[in-house]
Amino acid sequence: MSFQDKLQHSWQQNNSLLCVGLDPNPLLFPEHFHNIDNAIFEFNKAIIDATCDLVCAYKPQIAYFAAHAAEDQLAQTITYIQQYHPQIPIILDAKRGDIGSTAAKYAEEAFVRYNVDAVTINPYMGFDSVEPFIAYKDKGSILLCRTSNSSAADIQDLAIATEKGVEPLFKRVAKLASGKWNTHNNCLLVLGATEPQQMAEIREIVGDMVFLVPGIGAQGGDLEAMLKAGLRGDGKGLIVSSSRSVLYASQGADFAEAARAAALNLRDQINRYRQLR
Amino acid sequence: MSFQDKLQHSWQQNNSLLCVGLDPNPLLFPEHFHNIDNAIFEFNKAIIDATCDLVCAYKPQIAYFAAHAAEDQLAQTITYIQQYHPQIPIILDAKRGDIGSTAAKYAEEAFVRYNVDAVTINPYMGFDSVEPFIAYKDKGSILLCRTSNSSAADIQDLAIATEKGVEPLFKRVAKLASGKWNTHNNCLLVLGATEPQQMAEIREIVGDMVFLVPGIGAQGGDLEAMLKAGLRGDGKGLIVSSSRSVLYASQGADFAEAARAAALNLRDQINRYRQLR
Repeated sequence: MSFQDKLQHSWQQNNSLLCVGLDPNPLLFPEHFHNIDNAIFEFNKAIIDATCDLVCAYKPQIAYFAAHAAEDQLAQTITYIQQYHPQIPIILDAKRGDIGSTAAKYAEEAFVRYNVDAVTINPYMGFDSVEPFIAYKDKGSILLCRTSNSSAADIQDLAIATEKGVEPLFKRVAKLASGKWNTHNNCLLVLGATEPQQMAEIREIVGDMVFLVPGIGAQGGDLEAMLKAGLRGDGKGLIVSSSRSVLYASQGADFAEAARAAALNLRDQINRYRQLR
Repeated sequence: MSFQDKLQHSWQQNNSLLCVGLDPNPLLFPEHFHNIDNAIFEFNKAIIDATCDLVCAYKPQIAYFAAHAAEDQLAQTITYIQQYHPQIPIILDAKRGDIGSTAAKYAEEAFVRYNVDAVTINPYMGFDSVEPFIAYKDKGSILLCRTSNSSAADIQDLAIATEKGVEPLFKRVAKLASGKWNTHNNCLLVLGATEPQQMAEIREIVGDMVFLVPGIGAQGGDLEAMLKAGLRGDGKGLIVSSSRSVLYASQGADFAEAARAAALNLRDQINRYRQLR
């Protein structure tokens, strides 16, 4: 099944726009994980078991595995989701970007080695750095547009001179990713929850394109303002990602129940807003 | 020894500005590698043995290892260089970039797990995505500025409005990386060999900052024009990287000799120009 079909299905099936980001940090694991093998996989598995009926996607962040030489546990985590929850799409958060021949290797890493459904991509090097990813037509290519970190404005908000005046760089990226670059109609955008006004302007430009939205929870984005700005007419079009506020809702023995409660609460907050509008 | 000290030493010791990029592609290996274990490491080892007195640095490209689940062979390659050629700095070409907490994990991957001397970084997410790398004061943080691929202009050449008119985005990145962001004086820039005029303008702006220069050889940059544009007054300041034209100079049994000849030729071409000026 293509990424888009899987996403459509999981939005519906779990009545959820929530994506749980898997950023496993062993220093924050409950004590009983401290001396076991495969702690990263076992932690992820517990989180997945506790939230699998509440999410539209999982998003493992590869840096958390790479720092600990735990590529095997990333593969285990992905295989576990694919085996027990084959309907839930997996987004590899990797923010890759390189010249074409190297980008092809990164696309192979994401889509062949790990066989995930979508990957995040950095647009700074231009179209030929994106093309090897979008060539996998059934997969999702999620381009950084306006991110949620506090320094995002340093580069992304710079004013680009156009014929009609100026526009911020992130808008140019949104236009490219939804237009000329989107040759297989499988591009999405990363838009942080921290700047709802910017998200509204991008929704205006790109129509029904799907947004991956980090920055709620630990990063402090305003959920309601973001939903108002980003939801499509059909009440979908968003993958709202939360990592730390779900994974580490408790660091005690009840971490999985606490993660479930946090995910349920987020999903339902989002859904209350979707029903109200 | 710090990255800068190692680089200074290897420039001098090997009388070379040449960096060999380790982009191991098993499809291009000579036939006798086709059925051996650890072919990637063994190929790299042969290239290193053949070129170790001709280079100022090695630059493994992590995508080529990641695509083949060969992180162990990346570690082996790095350890081999560190053990037998401890004076040669190692640059991990990874082009990482993410929010601060994740960037810290990527910095851990590069500087702790693999213990390399420098890493390439994508600036699109702004200062807090760069800061965790430069916090390793003895290491080098090499920021993408103007790359050598044909789509580089899509984003990097966009005209940023300033008080005095416009300037291309890559110039703004150069100013940030050499100024406000360079809090520990350990930043370098990636500047492709394909646009010597742009390199000259950046050299003007950033003073003695070191440039990592891809794009000669397979990517077709003009070596002499690039050297004229980029060399510092002391005839140094550049790490001129070549991958494919050295690694695959021959795909026969003589690949190592051919790689040495190609590296020697490049080093000497560069040095002839340095002596002439």
